[in-house]
Amino acid sequence: MSKLWGGRFAKSTDVMVEEFTSSISFDQRMYREDIAGSIAHARMLAKCGIISTGEADTIIEGLTSILADIEAGHFSFEISLEDIHMNIEKRLTERIGAVGGKLHTARSRNDQVALDTHMYLKKEIRYIAGLIMDMQQAILDVAAKYPHTVMPGYTHLQRAQPILFSHHMLAYFFMLSRDFNRLHGVWEHTDIMPLGAGALAGTTFPIDRHYVAEQLKFSQVYENSMDAVSDRDYIMEFLSFASILMMHLSRISEEIILWSSSEFSFIELDDAHCTGSSIMPQKKNPDVAELVRGKTGRVFGHLMGILTVSKGLPLAYNKDLQEDKEGLFDAIDTLKFSLTTYASMLRDMRVNENRMRQVLRNDFSNATDMADYLVKKGLPFRQAHEVVGKAVAYCIEHNKWLMDVTLDEFKAFSELFEADILEAIKIETCVDARNSYGGTSSAQVRQELTVAQNMMNKERTTLDMYTKGNI
Amino acid sequence: MSKLWGGRFAKSTDVMVEEFTSSISFDQRMYREDIAGSIAHARMLAKCGIISTGEADTIIEGLTSILADIEAGHFSFEISLEDIHMNIEKRLTERIGAVGGKLHTARSRNDQVALDTHMYLKKEIRYIAGLIMDMQQAILDVAAKYPHTVMPGYTHLQRAQPILFSHHMLAYFFMLSRDFNRLHGVWEHTDIMPLGAGALAGTTFPIDRHYVAEQLKFSQVYENSMDAVSDRDYIMEFLSFASILMMHLSRISEEIILWSSSEFSFIELDDAHCTGSSIMPQKKNPDVAELVRGKTGRVFGHLMGILTVSKGLPLAYNKDLQEDKEGLFDAIDTLKFSLTTYASMLRDMRVNENRMRQVLRNDFSNATDMADYLVKKGLPFRQAHEVVGKAVAYCIEHNKWLMDVTLDEFKAFSELFEADILEAIKIETCVDARNSYGGTSSAQVRQELTVAQNMMNKERTTLDMYTKGNI
Amino acid sequence: MSKLWGGRFAKSTDVMVEEFTSSISFDQRMYREDIAGSIAHARMLAKCGIISTGEADTIIEGLTSILADIEAGHFSFEISLEDIHMNIEKRLTERIGAVGGKLHTARSRNDQVALDTHMYLKKEIRYIAGLIMDMQQAILDVAAKYPHTVMPGYTHLQRAQPILFSHHMLAYFFMLSRDFNRLHGVWEHTDIMPLGAGALAGTTFPIDRHYVAEQLKFSQVYENSMDAVSDRDYIMEFLSFASILMMHLSRISEEIILWSSSEFSFIELDDAHCTGSSIMPQKKNPDVAELVRGKTGRVFGHLMGILTVSKGLPLAYNKDLQEDKEGLFDAIDTLKFSLTTYASMLRDMRVNENRMRQVLRNDFSNATDMADYLVKKGLPFRQAHEVVGKAVAYCIEHNKWLMDVTLDEFKAFSELFEADILEAIKIETCVDARNSYGGTSSAQVRQELTVAQNMMNKERTTLDMYTKGNI
Amino acid sequence: MSKLWGGRFAKSTDVMVEEFTSSISFDQRMYREDIAGSIAHARMLAKCGIISTGEADTIIEGLTSILADIEAGHFSFEISLEDIHMNIEKRLTERIGAVGGKLHTARSRNDQVALDTHMYLKKEIRYIAGLIMDMQQAILDVAAKYPHTVMPGYTHLQRAQPILFSHHMLAYFFMLSRDFNRLHGVWEHTDIMPLGAGALAGTTFPIDRHYVAEQLKFSQVYENSMDAVSDRDYIMEFLSFASILMMHLSRISEEIILWSSSEFSFIELDDAHCTGSSIMPQKKNPDVAELVRGKTGRVFGHLMGILTVSKGLPLAYNKDLQEDKEGLFDAIDTLKFSLTTYASMLRDMRVNENRMRQVLRNDFSNATDMADYLVKKGLPFRQAHEVVGKAVAYCIEHNKWLMDVTLDEFKAFSELFEADILEAIKIETCVDARNSYGGTSSAQVRQELTVAQNMMNKERTTLDMYTKGNI
Repeated sequence: MSKLWGGRFAKSTDVMVEEFTSSISFDQRMYREDIAGSIAHARMLAKCGIISTGEADTIIEGLTSILADIEAGHFSFEISLEDIHMNIEKRLTERIGAVGGKLHTARSRNDQVALDTHMYLKKEIRYIAGLIMDMQQAILDVAAKYPHTVMPGYTHLQRAQPILFSHHMLAYFFMLSRDFNRLHGVWEHTDIMPLGAGALAGTTFPIDRHYVAEQLKFSQVYENSMDAVSDRDYIMEFLSFASILMMHLSRISEEIILWSSSEFSFIELDDAHCTGSSIMPQKKNPDVAELVRGKTGRVFGHLMGILTVSKGLPLAYNKDLQEDKEGLFDAIDTLKFSLTTYASMLRDMRVNENRMRQVLRNDFSNATDMADYLVKKGLPFRQAHEVVGKAVAYCIEHNKWLMDVTLDEFKAFSELFEADILEAIKIETCVDARNSYGGTSSAQVRQELTVAQNMMNKERTTLDMYTKGNI
Repeated sequence: MSKLWGGRFAKSTDVMVEEFTSSISFDQRMYREDIAGSIAHARMLAKCGIISTGEADTIIEGLTSILADIEAGHFSFEISLEDIHMNIEKRLTERIGAVGGKLHTARSRNDQVALDTHMYLKKEIRYIAGLIMDMQQAILDVAAKYPHTVMPGYTHLQRAQPILFSHHMLAYFFMLSRDFNRLHGVWEHTDIMPLGAGALAGTTFPIDRHYVAEQLKFSQVYENSMDAVSDRDYIMEFLSFASILMMHLSRISEEIILWSSSEFSFIELDDAHCTGSSIMPQKKNPDVAELVRGKTGRVFGHLMGILTVSKGLPLAYNKDLQEDKEGLFDAIDTLKFSLTTYASMLRDMRVNENRMRQVLRNDFSNATDMADYLVKKGLPFRQAHEVVGKAVAYCIEHNKWLMDVTLDEFKAFSELFEADILEAIKIETCVDARNSYGGTSSAQVRQELTVAQNMMNKERTTLDMYTKGNI
Repeated sequence: MSKLWGGRFAKSTDVMVEEFTSSISFDQRMYREDIAGSIAHARMLAKCGIISTGEADTIIEGLTSILADIEAGHFSFEISLEDIHMNIEKRLTERIGAVGGKLHTARSRNDQVALDTHMYLKKEIRYIAGLIMDMQQAILDVAAKYPHTVMPGYTHLQRAQPILFSHHMLAYFFMLSRDFNRLHGVWEHTDIMPLGAGALAGTTFPIDRHYVAEQLKFSQVYENSMDAVSDRDYIMEFLSFASILMMHLSRISEEIILWSSSEFSFIELDDAHCTGSSIMPQKKNPDVAELVRGKTGRVFGHLMGILTVSKGLPLAYNKDLQEDKEGLFDAIDTLKFSLTTYASMLRDMRVNENRMRQVLRNDFSNATDMADYLVKKGLPFRQAHEVVGKAVAYCIEHNKWLMDVTLDEFKAFSELFEADILEAIKIETCVDARNSYGGTSSAQVRQELTVAQNMMNKERTTLDMYTKGNI
Repeated sequence: MSKLWGGRFAKSTDVMVEEFTSSISFDQRMYREDIAGSIAHARMLAKCGIISTGEADTIIEGLTSILADIEAGHFSFEISLEDIHMNIEKRLTERIGAVGGKLHTARSRNDQVALDTHMYLKKEIRYIAGLIMDMQQAILDVAAKYPHTVMPGYTHLQRAQPILFSHHMLAYFFMLSRDFNRLHGVWEHTDIMPLGAGALAGTTFPIDRHYVAEQLKFSQVYENSMDAVSDRDYIMEFLSFASILMMHLSRISEEIILWSSSEFSFIELDDAHCTGSSIMPQKKNPDVAELVRGKTGRVFGHLMGILTVSKGLPLAYNKDLQEDKEGLFDAIDTLKFSLTTYASMLRDMRVNENRMRQVLRNDFSNATDMADYLVKKGLPFRQAHEVVGKAVAYCIEHNKWLMDVTLDEFKAFSELFEADILEAIKIETCVDARNSYGGTSSAQVRQELTVAQNMMNKERTTLDMYTKGNI
């Protein structure tokens, strides 16, 4: 019977198991961290008298030459050596002889892979923090470029009240600033040094974990060795941060796509961020925005993946945990591409100010202001609401907008209307009247910009700290 | 045709839509927050001259009496009034007359529901922070109760090296302390006051949002009104925190279940946390641990739920966001029950110290120490590993453990073995030899306990701060 | 220290555990199935001589009277009795005495709860299948109501080519027909009878499982007792089906919301499916569509929940599996409400045919047809594409649409243009020219309607089969 | 400011966008399907007179030579050509000249990529169906190898009742047979031909979609062109199937891991499916089982990913849908590796029959049978349960098992005990007494094996059908 479905794999099962359990195809991207960690470990072993200084020097020299080879593209990784650690250690021993075997003293792959992943993520956090700031700056640039542009504000995708375009854009600035904060939370749980935990219980050698931490710029060490080798919280926390950030990007993408449609026509994207159609000559598709919105899915998926992996695992290390990296790496790549592309897409987009203003002219989004007008003349809100409701119905019936109604017509709805009503429902009046803290008036938006600049300054300090923490 | 599947709902469609879109069945649990928020709003309106002090007093009196009624169980919520806000406002107007209508001046349900949810979550965060500390304390109590108890440490669910039971338990302490930190991150993004954002753009009334924040003990206000009404980050962030915490509980649950099995027999749970079987008289099932492990699923699900809800939503408020609460509330309840039950289950469990020791006697988890012994006598690690491998094979063949081997037999494997080998592979020796920082030796575990106490002290300060922030 | 966070629960821990582990709050909705299953079991016990016919009669009479009490609202469920099974069995014994105890012979709660859930889900599948058909019929009704209505077809939310509105709606018909098929797959894995599996291994009593299956209209019995008590595939499969269906509804909801916006103005929903705004008199929000789109999140979440629960569970029954029901029940309710509301919302919506036609007049979605015109005159497609690209650019520059261009102007782009070009790019021509199988031409859409009717007929046969299978 | 975080990408933004939006890195694995689809399309164009027979022959010859080049490794894919379709078409035109441009007549990349994906998945479904059967056969082989082996059956991971090992294994057979069924459901929704849908609305050329379907062995064509280009149901359905299958594998993996532990010692895996430890000489870790359990996470994640991608997308094609493939491909690879490895791991594992039997000797899992003994002697079940409970307590107090109790001692608990009690609670008696349909008795397990063989025969017929459907 095996003929039916057997024999479809050229490889023998043993080779399949080897490939299945090997991680070198994806963990090779941590080669710098693996080598830097090994150098720090070798220095510590010498300092503590576990190996001699000469041995340490030989090992470090060997590792340094391997690093150079990898960067020059002269290193071939082998699946049969399972992972980045064994690939490098094997080559080291080939190169410097038996002393290479001393490097693994007082450590295990369980704590070594944890160290590499912590270091790698710290590096990427620094990049991503910078990219978040870059996108925030792009938002500030766009807001500054269009200080007086008005547009309809929406709830339920129905026009609600006129707002400043810059106010709308700044909402995304503040979302990103929370993302930056959350990323800093991830940093704090990533900046803990696991090496020295051994397989799970610590080691019998008189090592100095704090010296390793100091060399590698970690501010803390794990307090418990079993926790050190089985903790993947920082990966889940990063993926939670990434999911919320991508959710934000999916929201602005939805708006970019809406605004680029013929029906809205609020913006025009630069050709560099669009594609045409091979069969429809008139098409200009907002591909980048659609793709970022779509890529939200994979990041949510990676979060679900690592949560599932970890559910119900007993202490300490289990092989399941090898599944922690691919989703993390893919999420990092996705974020880096999305943020970079977005910053440039926002900077290059053209805003159709006239179209937005014209649209506001032809709707009822100033109706709330008309009701407020009556309230300020003394009418209770419920009655004012009713009067305006009737005026809107009247306009619809007569195919007009509120701005087209004469004072006489207004007076038929309420004697409280006076000549200043037309001023009161002008778009600029409506916008500037919303002058409560955080509202859409010009004054408040200027205030928001100041707050935003202060936030950026604080973020820059954090980023400097990250940069110093890098090796 | 409609006869086939029509007519199965007694209700008319209109009633169905009403029920479908109503939220009163679940948002009524925020009644305290809704009323406290309204009182603060009324005070602010009076302070800013938007309503008179007398009107404010009447409103506050009315709200206070409604609160009393709800707490006394004399208030019936109506689905046709949609939500908690309308249920209370309607009753207020019935009770104090038209002036009740002034309460809604300068606010919208969009910012009101955001305020209630923020306040409610802050309250629950305070509770949950305390429960995390309670479970941490239970772990410390258990660790203190069994200071010298040894057990096998596992990797891949295979016995690896002997460890202290207290060291194993403390791994969970440190996981919980990261959970506490993450919860504090959630607090910081929850402790932002949204009221005054209106429907989306702010309000035309001269309100004082900071005065409302001060009354309600918020340390910040939202800087952008559109962000204020559409932000649900803090809910996702809470559910991320909750997912990671439940993941930790699923891991300890797995261990509790394993340890309670006949095969392990490491612990015995108190009857209060187990159930029997109606047909198998000998059964004692660790139901609580199984259920907590199972409830991990619903919390992961709620996280995925709110992420999905938010994906691709344009600004500002959309009705989809009403879906934010049920998952949040259910996760809160799940956490509170799980943490409370766990603290008591751990405190009441009996540890079978003899069984754990006996198990260690009969395995090879001291093999690493035997290799380390040879390394310290000068043998390179790779050779030492090989010698021990042969000794283990010899033991298996002759049905012995390493402790049963005589010195003469040892010497046949390597001349380096001397009389002190038997001491070197005793369980206590093995445990105490792992004296690297964070390792399992008695000295290190004492150090961990000190660190843990310091962490608890810091957490207590945070908890005090939360308590002061409550209204 | 416990004062700080202790004492916040009025209940003692024991009561909390009881409540935590009890399922009566949600499994009581299966009371009919529990009683029907018990009656069938009692009849079988008598038929097999395990109890006497008289005993069976007494038991059945008792159960029947309990059913009547529950339906009349005269039955109070008690948390301390854990679940629906114990609540009913306890009452039975109170009512008919010790013979009530015989009902549980040869069964366990493990197989009993599985039976109830299977039966309950079969009933709900029947309902939901009918509701899918009802929504499909609503789509056919709408398509039939607007046979000649044209609209822009979109890709990337950019207008692409003109289509028939009915063609667009029918796309959803075919999605729902796949949903119907998938639901039938769920039915087949739900229609398997688990009773008689006992706790996990079968029973020592000479029972007849096929007789129970026959009474309860199951077409199969589980072949393996351990599988019978631990299988929750059918629940995951239902939630997968439900997730894909909700995904479809989220897509049509997105379109309903877009089409209801001022910018599109393609449709107007009936007031019954919208809500107004308490502060913006002009608003009419498509709440139902938004809420359905939002409820997609909870269904995805329930799927992830049950997958997580089941991951890594050893055989056979584990308490974790009690977490299978709440998500299932909530998904069932969500689907029933969503489908019912949608069918009525579609039937009541008004389509703005003129607006759609006018929009098409003013865009370039007939550009592909202009290129096809040239291809049919002999120009290679790539050249034709280029010519049309230039013509579109010319129009944009001169602020015209293709329909506004004169023959002379056309000829400047290519000599191949002749008088029939204006006919060739008329909207109706464009639509009807897409006459490939499954295309948007009137002829093809009529063909689709015929296919759709045939599918409905087959579905009706399946539904009849379900109906017969109900007890 | 840009200096701080700018300049970290060597690539210009344009190149990044190109790489970000390109799919060639992953869709190149569908090259066979792309070429086969193009050949069928060219034949159809000639048959319908849209191109000449000579042109079709030239195109087909060109495509055939490209296929040969790719298979020989002489084809370099270029990112700047975006996807597999453009890479091949570009090369075709280079090779055969302008006539290559005619291949794209009457189709669009929207329907072309859908066609490729459908064809690719059909091929993989055939493979995976075979692998499921292979694993089922491995289970049958194992069951046949140990026909009389007894082991404890567990609920709540507590020993419950003695069962046959083969009965336990067969539970997984029946899970896999449901997986096979579900996969067939996926097949039915994948076996629908989308080509001819064009960009979204069909095409103006007189094509014959059924002829394409016939050539490519599809049994249906999509009835609606918009559905054809935007349908991704079959991918979600596959990932749902894959998630449930992986969940099953995670359950058996959990058991393999438990059984391989020192505490259980029920089985020994072959060295080929385990790894050792670099520092612990005695370790033998069940890596493959752990890794399969871990890989459950990624498959759940991919399901969540595609659901999220699709949520809320308007019709018809959106760029987001390009995110459909990577998760699908990774899930396919994961399933193929997991199933293949599992079949061989099960076949090679050694079962410790003596250990299992010995374990049963020393527990109370025959307690239910002792109670049943009394019931059959006439004692009501509740009383019997109580008597046995006391006997168990007595044994625990006196450090015995039920088999060690003398008849006199038994009689002290109930006069109903007679000499045959010792026979009645022997393990084999207990097992064979559970002779209800689907129970664990030897007779029932033989019956299960017959049913299983019949299922395999039916599956083989389905697999044959798939094989014939392949091109």
